[in-house]
Amino acid sequence: MAKNLEITVLLDFYGDMLTPKQREFLDYYYNQDLSLSEIAANVGITRQGVRDAIKRAECQLIEMEERLGLVRRFKEVEKGLAEIIDCASRISAENRKTGLSREISDLTVRIKSIALSLSEE
Amino acid sequence: MAKNLEITVLLDFYGDMLTPKQREFLDYYYNQDLSLSEIAANVGITRQGVRDAIKRAECQLIEMEERLGLVRRFKEVEKGLAEIIDCASRISAENRKTGLSREISDLTVRIKSIALSLSEE
Repeated sequence: MAKNLEITVLLDFYGDMLTPKQREFLDYYYNQDLSLSEIAANVGITRQGVRDAIKRAECQLIEMEERLGLVRRFKEVEKGLAEIIDCASRISAENRKTGLSREISDLTVRIKSIALSLSEE
Repeated sequence: MAKNLEITVLLDFYGDMLTPKQREFLDYYYNQDLSLSEIAANVGITRQGVRDAIKRAECQLIEMEERLGLVRRFKEVEKGLAEIIDCASRISAENRKTGLSREISDLTVRIKSIALSLSEE
């Protein structure tokens, strides 16, 4: 069973929609990097049982993304905010070269600070 | 049964996670503004059955927001983007008054355009 790195991202976004058991299995497998056999030994079920449970939970995460598109939208917002930060830096540099307006300088700092705080959420 | 206007917003975000039947009921009730009795007549079940189904679907929507917080996050991003647009407008006005830099003017247009496109998604 190949590990799907995209699952880690989906787990961040949709993990709270899974059952505690499902979250536990995926956490062992993806975040703590345990093998199927190690997880089976930890939770006291068969390796095949763990495998099936993980597969099912993965399918649910993928289906939630297909329905809600939260990760896709989040990545678009991230990309836009990074571009806004870049534009604000260039305004700031241009202002230092030519206009030397204190107000423009303050406003570019404000734009960068808002864009950064939205990226970090 | 009081109509909860917040449900319309939650329906936009999480409607795809409900069953087609649940979406149909909530659509009749919230978007098309039919009464419980009218919906009951349309779908051929009792008024109480419609009422219960709507209540259950509403609870599911509210629970999804409690788990994923998509609407809360979306509103925060909207607010930040509106403030970025305002800052860009003020940079543009200040630049027209003092610096007259073509590059700063272009960059403020770019920031506003990115922020607007992210708001509209």
